[in-house]
Amino acid sequence: MTDFFAGAPDAAPCTGFTANPITRDSERQDANKLAAAVADPTARFLLFVGADLRLPAVPDRGDVATPYFDIAEAEALGADPADTILLGHHNTIPVLAARLSAPTAPDPQNPATYRAGQYREAEEGVIDLRSLAMFGMLSAEDLGIVGHAGGLMNWHRGHGHCARCGAPTRIEQGGYRRNCDTCGRHHFPRTDPVVIMLAIDGERCVLGRQPRFVTDMYSCLAGFVEPGETIEGAVRRELAEESGLQIGRVRYHSSQPWPFPHSLMIGCHAEAVSTEIDFDHEELEDCRWFSREEARSMLDRNHADGLFTPPPMAIAHQLLRHWIDNA
Amino acid sequence: MTDFFAGAPDAAPCTGFTANPITRDSERQDANKLAAAVADPTARFLLFVGADLRLPAVPDRGDVATPYFDIAEAEALGADPADTILLGHHNTIPVLAARLSAPTAPDPQNPATYRAGQYREAEEGVIDLRSLAMFGMLSAEDLGIVGHAGGLMNWHRGHGHCARCGAPTRIEQGGYRRNCDTCGRHHFPRTDPVVIMLAIDGERCVLGRQPRFVTDMYSCLAGFVEPGETIEGAVRRELAEESGLQIGRVRYHSSQPWPFPHSLMIGCHAEAVSTEIDFDHEELEDCRWFSREEARSMLDRNHADGLFTPPPMAIAHQLLRHWIDNA
Repeated sequence: MTDFFAGAPDAAPCTGFTANPITRDSERQDANKLAAAVADPTARFLLFVGADLRLPAVPDRGDVATPYFDIAEAEALGADPADTILLGHHNTIPVLAARLSAPTAPDPQNPATYRAGQYREAEEGVIDLRSLAMFGMLSAEDLGIVGHAGGLMNWHRGHGHCARCGAPTRIEQGGYRRNCDTCGRHHFPRTDPVVIMLAIDGERCVLGRQPRFVTDMYSCLAGFVEPGETIEGAVRRELAEESGLQIGRVRYHSSQPWPFPHSLMIGCHAEAVSTEIDFDHEELEDCRWFSREEARSMLDRNHADGLFTPPPMAIAHQLLRHWIDNA
Repeated sequence: MTDFFAGAPDAAPCTGFTANPITRDSERQDANKLAAAVADPTARFLLFVGADLRLPAVPDRGDVATPYFDIAEAEALGADPADTILLGHHNTIPVLAARLSAPTAPDPQNPATYRAGQYREAEEGVIDLRSLAMFGMLSAEDLGIVGHAGGLMNWHRGHGHCARCGAPTRIEQGGYRRNCDTCGRHHFPRTDPVVIMLAIDGERCVLGRQPRFVTDMYSCLAGFVEPGETIEGAVRRELAEESGLQIGRVRYHSSQPWPFPHSLMIGCHAEAVSTEIDFDHEELEDCRWFSREEARSMLDRNHADGLFTPPPMAIAHQLLRHWIDNA
């Protein structure tokens, strides 16, 4: 008897944002449960400044931080209980998120806070989520919780009005819904599916560089799933548009919530059935074939010219690793 | 040498809405290209009344219809060129969609138009997309195009205002974006990822009945992916919430765009590691184990008690079929 579930791996344990232990019960949340959670002395608060997270203390590199404040700390920092959402419970502990209006966010235009190996402690203990993930400053479970909170807070931040009638909306269901009292519409958090894929031709694969990437980094190609597409159709269209390659079979590998601002990365391997790359010079600075050995040296960060790939927390890394180790 | 892409099937050809041949070029669409497409004498128009499609002629059951009007017909019926979107091109032919404000939509509260075997021709040739898909009235490619249009039109219909500032938005990029001229925000079409899954324990699987289902129909369980979840995490959470089962491995099968209103169905098989079902009586009317033989008879519509599953156009059917034929 064959094993029907053979070859069904989850995301690797080190893939960022995937080890989220929160029990949501999102459909059963309401204002009473939110109030009870806020009043629970064991409650833990995540505090956001814009899209960034405020940490109780920012450790030196290599240490693991805690992202949580208690209610007294949260209130002292200016968290507004009326603008607080309940993510759910971790075991029995309520986990909440609130926004601060402090002016101490790091400058997102400053590449220093986003560049591997060059993290510098942000003023007032505020750090962007991407750096937090890249530098392994949180446990895998806490990073999952922070990603969950970040995606939801990003959605609330951009959806204070009703997309149907334009009136202001208000938080409902502990933060898992916004209601419009004017036209009655219920709005649910948005999650944008994105395909990210490694195109393969035998012993070589396709990697590209976006202009915004840090110098010498190459990654898998990616793009949003569009209306009316399957996952496989989106993989084929994106690779055709960005690399000019034609694709045969597509195999799903794993997925990753990606809170920038609220995406779901759907990782796939794609079988190239043409070989000439004609890449999109608006989207990409370079896009070319890499041999398996060259890709391995980039993953392992010992490439002769210093080229490298994203770190293990990125699903692009895991797609490459899986192919290199299993093809 | 092993075949790295072994076991990477696409959606079955009969899965509804998946055979969409449109070339979008959505990022390169603009008002000029839209105007050129409208002026192209070969252009084809899909016309919507609310969420429903107006057909040039509604054939008797079993025949295949065309969903397209030409520009003269579209204008005669009241299509507004200023409210028209460009889906893309099918080969060289522009395919557009517009909305009519006719009062002849079928009543969505009337189950007759949704019930298998009981379709009755709607007045004025207007039919809901679900019935259109269920009754195989269009070719697979045209159904894919109609689903694409339906999802996009549903999004436009619910997003006439800016979710950030509340001001009215306008169509851009041929219909693949809405712009807010007040706060400058660009809004892109929303696609909601939904997991739909067949839980399996050896020779039996779990099917459930929602109260809104037609009598005697059972299907796979399903639910929206929530913020901060992987696909696999969503499968485990939904099965825990709806059936009380604990799940081990999850294996992705295939996907399906589902324009009700604009979802992406992500079909998976799930390995049950507990056996006692304690189902959610708010969401489900029944939920229980079915042997493989019983499920096969429901798929083949020869079950002793008349129970049945959704038709081949539904991804739930394909998840069952794959397990029954391959486990």
